[in-house]
Amino acid sequence: MNRLDWNTLDTQGQRTALSRPAQSRAESLRAGVEQIVARVRADGDAALRELTTKFDRCVLQAIEVSEAEWSQAEARLSPELKAAIDEAAARIDAFHRAAAPQPVALDTAGGVRVERMLRPIQRVGLYVPAGSAPLPSTALMLGVPARIAGCAQVVLCSPARPDGRCDDAVLYAARVTGVHRVFKLGGAQAVAAMAYGTESVPKCDKLFGPGNAWVTEAKLQVSADPEGAAIDMPAGPSEVLVIADEDANPAFVAADLLSQAEHGPDSQVILLSPSAALLDAVEAEVAEQCAALPRADIAQKALSQSRLIAVSSLAQAVEVSNRYAPEHLILQVGDPRALLDDIESAGSVFLGAWTPESVGDYCSGSNHVLPTYGYARSYSGVSVASFQKQITVQEVSPDGLRAIGPCTATLAGAEQLEAHRRAVTLRLAVLEDAA
Amino acid sequence: MNRLDWNTLDTQGQRTALSRPAQSRAESLRAGVEQIVARVRADGDAALRELTTKFDRCVLQAIEVSEAEWSQAEARLSPELKAAIDEAAARIDAFHRAAAPQPVALDTAGGVRVERMLRPIQRVGLYVPAGSAPLPSTALMLGVPARIAGCAQVVLCSPARPDGRCDDAVLYAARVTGVHRVFKLGGAQAVAAMAYGTESVPKCDKLFGPGNAWVTEAKLQVSADPEGAAIDMPAGPSEVLVIADEDANPAFVAADLLSQAEHGPDSQVILLSPSAALLDAVEAEVAEQCAALPRADIAQKALSQSRLIAVSSLAQAVEVSNRYAPEHLILQVGDPRALLDDIESAGSVFLGAWTPESVGDYCSGSNHVLPTYGYARSYSGVSVASFQKQITVQEVSPDGLRAIGPCTATLAGAEQLEAHRRAVTLRLAVLEDAA
Ligand SMILES: [Zn+2]
Ligand SMILES: [Zn+2]
Repeated sequence: MNRLDWNTLDTQGQRTALSRPAQSRAESLRAGVEQIVARVRADGDAALRELTTKFDRCVLQAIEVSEAEWSQAEARLSPELKAAIDEAAARIDAFHRAAAPQPVALDTAGGVRVERMLRPIQRVGLYVPAGSAPLPSTALMLGVPARIAGCAQVVLCSPARPDGRCDDAVLYAARVTGVHRVFKLGGAQAVAAMAYGTESVPKCDKLFGPGNAWVTEAKLQVSADPEGAAIDMPAGPSEVLVIADEDANPAFVAADLLSQAEHGPDSQVILLSPSAALLDAVEAEVAEQCAALPRADIAQKALSQSRLIAVSSLAQAVEVSNRYAPEHLILQVGDPRALLDDIESAGSVFLGAWTPESVGDYCSGSNHVLPTYGYARSYSGVSVASFQKQITVQEVSPDGLRAIGPCTATLAGAEQLEAHRRAVTLRLAVLEDAA
Repeated sequence: MNRLDWNTLDTQGQRTALSRPAQSRAESLRAGVEQIVARVRADGDAALRELTTKFDRCVLQAIEVSEAEWSQAEARLSPELKAAIDEAAARIDAFHRAAAPQPVALDTAGGVRVERMLRPIQRVGLYVPAGSAPLPSTALMLGVPARIAGCAQVVLCSPARPDGRCDDAVLYAARVTGVHRVFKLGGAQAVAAMAYGTESVPKCDKLFGPGNAWVTEAKLQVSADPEGAAIDMPAGPSEVLVIADEDANPAFVAADLLSQAEHGPDSQVILLSPSAALLDAVEAEVAEQCAALPRADIAQKALSQSRLIAVSSLAQAVEVSNRYAPEHLILQVGDPRALLDDIESAGSVFLGAWTPESVGDYCSGSNHVLPTYGYARSYSGVSVASFQKQITVQEVSPDGLRAIGPCTATLAGAEQLEAHRRAVTLRLAVLEDAA
């Protein structure tokens, strides 16, 4: 881990301290994904089968998970894991429901009613990776808000293992959240299938979920095509920034840093503290705890680029954090709420010693699909709103038009849009004639 | 105008009836914009001056609008236009404030508090075109929600005329909404300046607003670059779909179709009606009203690709509309609210005879920056939420961790994320020791 002192760094040094791993859209990746997308558009299911054999080393019988497979998966799953999935789904449901957008209606003038109504995006596609391990929690994080939004068609793609089966827990989580159809597809081919549709896979309006570089690049490509599909947000490697004071428990801080580090070798881990003693203690704890982890090698790689940064105060730590705009922000300080007001950008925030990031990943109720890579400056995590459209509605009565028609006509005139002006004056003349 | 009968069309015919003008991202446009963006990134203000001389035929003294220019613009403006801008701003403010997202807090279990807090996107850039005419209304539609959201830095770019001045009404509207700085820049160079920053123009996190093909392409390019800026939504030509019944006033319907048609030669105009008599009458009215318009030539071009489509019923009209997903949807029918429940996709909806689309363009209070080109299937119009991030926050007490810790640990175990699991079990062990 790299130890740095923020206040001894020059501007360039500070920039480097907060730099993220470069994400080059390598030309080879771009071209490779373009080829896959084109193949799926041209050959549909046949292309999907071929690409799945090639990339997932899996010969697909049916592309779609059958009713029998759903039932078998559920039967195989341990009662404990089922209960945990049910419990997590319930809390995710409760919070997402509470935070869902509400309809609005307001008279902005007498006889001028303006409303906002909510409509589900009709057809959504969820992607659940299964790289180093299957991620049933991601199925929950996407499936629950889709169900609350009321999407008419919820499709989920997740790569099958070489034995041709999707993960039991992913299937169970998909079922619990009301996902309609699951397809055994991964990578860029899954994204292409959902964006354009094939014989088996229905076309979707918007795609959600994390994925590897191929998935990310495919999402970027299909979202740039009006015939493709919208996407939840741009993606990057996962990251955490922890702010800890001198009273923080170094073992807790180290455990949270390691949770992030084990996600992948490109994970980013940053600790800010005004206490040199705390930084020392965490460094020692990380080394000790890391050695005992099954994914120690992955975590080690992430840690080799991680930063322990001394700052002059908690206020400065918040400034630095705002500049970085972390996906996960953990405030392991005596009074975390005192810092919260000044937090400008973050995906999700964890307050105090007893709120490890893991609870947000799984079952506090908040969503774990969050903006990374600095996108927290301008994007929010996935929520019910991500699965809805907000449509404005206006209804003007004759009196209402008398009230706001002249303003409309004046502005239309200023913009030299005469037909716009006449659409109002014509009506006002009819009203006058009738009076 | 093209007369079609929906029920005599085959699948391909129906598709063609609802097709939009092809938007090719011509390679020349793409390359031209790439060059402009690269030049602005490399040479900053010098590039902006050179490109402005070339494209806007305007030699810029200062790039930024000065305090004196703001005052002069205000002094030159007619009291009537000032009053109309003030009035529109007030109603836009009232509706956008009412529809703004609210903070949320919920205990999802005893001792598990989950919240959503709202934070403004710190630095936003607004683009206000001034192609055929300046658009003060667009300054209002972007500036008002930016102010309500509380963005710390609101920058606006609008091209200057050859005499080096920005439009008085645009400047006044910008001032009314609290825009902080205005720059005399247009086209791809304005977008590049706001996305990357120059000596004069500060870098922005997110860019908003309509524009021509160059602006649209530039927004697409900078939004695909993590070092660039996010954008409000993808853009396309403006469009309206009107559903009218046999009692609709043909003059009103024609006036609304023409409002849309005068926006540009690529505007789309579609009328659906179960009444052949109404379609006849509107066709005649459009011809008559169009002839009297100053922009008759533009409207004529748009109308030449417009469609009057006979449908069997209002219910079928709604189905067809949902398939098209129009930016503007006008329901000129006796009981428009009876159709509203079945509307799945639209940018903004206008109910009844006395609600011309112009009121939404200017001053009903709703936003006029709306998804076009089918994007209404998955995108919403601009609102306060577009200028904010929704950040989730969780705070778990020792009792809370006892409650949700086991569920977290089980799921982390299932995903083979051992460090995630230990971040919980380590804490639970400390709690047990203390008990
Ligand atoms: Zn995690
Ligand atoms: Zn208009």
